[in-house]
Amino acid sequence: MNAEIIAVGSEMLTPQRVDTNSLYLTAELNNLGVEVVLKSVIGDDRDRLADAVRRAVDRHQVVILSGGLGPTEDDVTRDAVAQALGRKLIFHDDLADALEERFRAAKRKMVEINKRQAFVIEGADVLPNDRGTAPGQWLEESGAAVMLLPGPPHELKAMFERQCLPRLRRIAPKLVIRTVFFRVTGMGESELDALIAPVYKKYENPATTILAANGDLQVHLRARCSTTEEADALLAEVAAPIEALLGDRLYSRNGDPLEVVVGEMLKGRNATVAVAESATGGMLGERFTSVPGSSAYFAGGFLTYTNAMKIELLGVPPETLERFGAVSEETAAAMAVGALHRTHASYALSITGVAGPDTDGAPAGTMYVGIADAEGTRVVHRQYLGDRQRVRIFVCQLALDLLRRRIINGS
Amino acid sequence: MNAEIIAVGSEMLTPQRVDTNSLYLTAELNNLGVEVVLKSVIGDDRDRLADAVRRAVDRHQVVILSGGLGPTEDDVTRDAVAQALGRKLIFHDDLADALEERFRAAKRKMVEINKRQAFVIEGADVLPNDRGTAPGQWLEESGAAVMLLPGPPHELKAMFERQCLPRLRRIAPKLVIRTVFFRVTGMGESELDALIAPVYKKYENPATTILAANGDLQVHLRARCSTTEEADALLAEVAAPIEALLGDRLYSRNGDPLEVVVGEMLKGRNATVAVAESATGGMLGERFTSVPGSSAYFAGGFLTYTNAMKIELLGVPPETLERFGAVSEETAAAMAVGALHRTHASYALSITGVAGPDTDGAPAGTMYVGIADAEGTRVVHRQYLGDRQRVRIFVCQLALDLLRRRIINGS
Repeated sequence: MNAEIIAVGSEMLTPQRVDTNSLYLTAELNNLGVEVVLKSVIGDDRDRLADAVRRAVDRHQVVILSGGLGPTEDDVTRDAVAQALGRKLIFHDDLADALEERFRAAKRKMVEINKRQAFVIEGADVLPNDRGTAPGQWLEESGAAVMLLPGPPHELKAMFERQCLPRLRRIAPKLVIRTVFFRVTGMGESELDALIAPVYKKYENPATTILAANGDLQVHLRARCSTTEEADALLAEVAAPIEALLGDRLYSRNGDPLEVVVGEMLKGRNATVAVAESATGGMLGERFTSVPGSSAYFAGGFLTYTNAMKIELLGVPPETLERFGAVSEETAAAMAVGALHRTHASYALSITGVAGPDTDGAPAGTMYVGIADAEGTRVVHRQYLGDRQRVRIFVCQLALDLLRRRIINGS
Repeated sequence: MNAEIIAVGSEMLTPQRVDTNSLYLTAELNNLGVEVVLKSVIGDDRDRLADAVRRAVDRHQVVILSGGLGPTEDDVTRDAVAQALGRKLIFHDDLADALEERFRAAKRKMVEINKRQAFVIEGADVLPNDRGTAPGQWLEESGAAVMLLPGPPHELKAMFERQCLPRLRRIAPKLVIRTVFFRVTGMGESELDALIAPVYKKYENPATTILAANGDLQVHLRARCSTTEEADALLAEVAAPIEALLGDRLYSRNGDPLEVVVGEMLKGRNATVAVAESATGGMLGERFTSVPGSSAYFAGGFLTYTNAMKIELLGVPPETLERFGAVSEETAAAMAVGALHRTHASYALSITGVAGPDTDGAPAGTMYVGIADAEGTRVVHRQYLGDRQRVRIFVCQLALDLLRRRIINGS
């Protein structure tokens, strides 16, 4: 079973933009045993898009279009697909009403043009969009399943997962694919590969993939078999020695990110955490609080970007700042202790450093992370490479991992 | 003059890889006044690629293929293009000799298979590759220029720049492309389109594109003319009435994001800002401090996720929380005032609300943003739609915009 993915939008043909939706879609299709054989990006040109759709439907069993479903004149996907398949566009009153209701709920006036989003291709199923205004569409033609999905990644992902995957599973060939998904931190990608390659290299099935992003590593094992039992047995055989090698660097077996894992640990112990951030300016707090329900364990935090704020808000002694500087082990320790005392949290994390560019005091990438609890205080120093944003992301990952290890191992 | 770019290689169809060569090629082609209207990625399948090449040559004046020129069986580009155009492949002894010489110089033995790289399509010019073994090819067919380039970016760039650009300059029409780039906030995408469409709809040139992401809107105007003067005059003619319609919702003319624009305003006035974040847990501070040099104006902040922290760190009166709740205009105002006093900043922003899911007190998406300065305090209420992350991103954008307007207009 072969698939073609078409991204629609003139902005996707500029030198600044790449189509990342197709990467997510490819991963999901591969999981179903469907291979992507052609991807394209087409501008807001109805005839050109209609031509591509016609050919895609003739050649492949799955055709996915992303983007071009908005309300404006240059959103041409609905029209182009209708034209390609020789079908009519039908106005759905209920969709128009739902759109109007959505705008009313947000206390905004709906301009007339939004009603374009209520046109549905004859014979297509409407795919509800709970994260945006553009509904998607699913239709079948000459043995091909055709999906029209919105362009914004978070809308596309939610719609594909909830609406398209169940439908695709019904028509995809019966091949069982089972996966194991480890998340790992505290080591580099090549180090991880050198460690576990001697195990996974022995197997073609399951296929093993290592992904690295933002200081976080993922190991995917994917077994394709004719029965679930067979696939699970095969996965267990490969996963067990990998788990043993990873030890406590393996932090998640279900895909949960580090902030969720740490949050669950805190919740289970009725413990709380506070943060004191200098170089990251709120990024660590943002990660903790990106988790629904984090108010149960996130006590609060201090963004102390300047020396004055470190002194006033956290009680860092001026002598410490003067003698060792703001970017130092001593300041990191004093920040963590200050946050702990002022919030009465169970744990406090502090971050101080130079995200970049270089300053007089220290080169870009110099970072100190402190952790304090009733047992005492510890500071870890790292020298990171890369740009400002990368350094900030990496040091937040380190801070979360320090807390995870402190909770597991004690001080 | 229109171009199509085709990336060849099954590895480019995995979930891990994106075609970045096309971004470089697009930038270079746009500089010549050539528009890229279609990009595709095709696996190592000769027939499928030949089909695509045939259609590309029939439709566009520039066709660029990248990749698939190596020595192995799955390098199909030479064969596919020859097949598409009905031309023979001719073995070039001099190329084979040069390849052998190259291997000898590197003290490596050349395996026979490398000789595949000495086949050239009948009538094509050979494009020397001084950074790798695969030579490129340039040919013309039915009025289209077709280029076969190697996949590795550093080989492709060097070859395109030295061999293809001079040839393209001879055949490209003398066209200049100039752009205007507005960033806009404080309105929805459809509202923006309804407002400015009456202006831009009157012009095919410049072409206008509207992009929306995370509460931020972009308007691109792109003029294609034969001289710079003509293009600039045309842009001015269209941009001026659009600027007038947008008024102070237009916040950037050079692509700078809102946090940079606001940061520059603060710096120019020797002013500082502090934040008090509840529902966003650090995201607003993170945006301010994502800008290098933000320590000049970011005073600091408070992450007060709980009532206790709002009272202790910000001095919000317990009666206010009790009477109006944490998610209220009164609490937002007290948070902003507390942050202002405790940091001595020129301005303080506060955010309190329910990012999601729903709570007892208020539905998800309820947000209050406060702003305080020496002149007084103001609170804005919004009801957002969408998931937790989207709500948090939108309300941070609103907070930044409130500060921008306060600085421009006074209180």
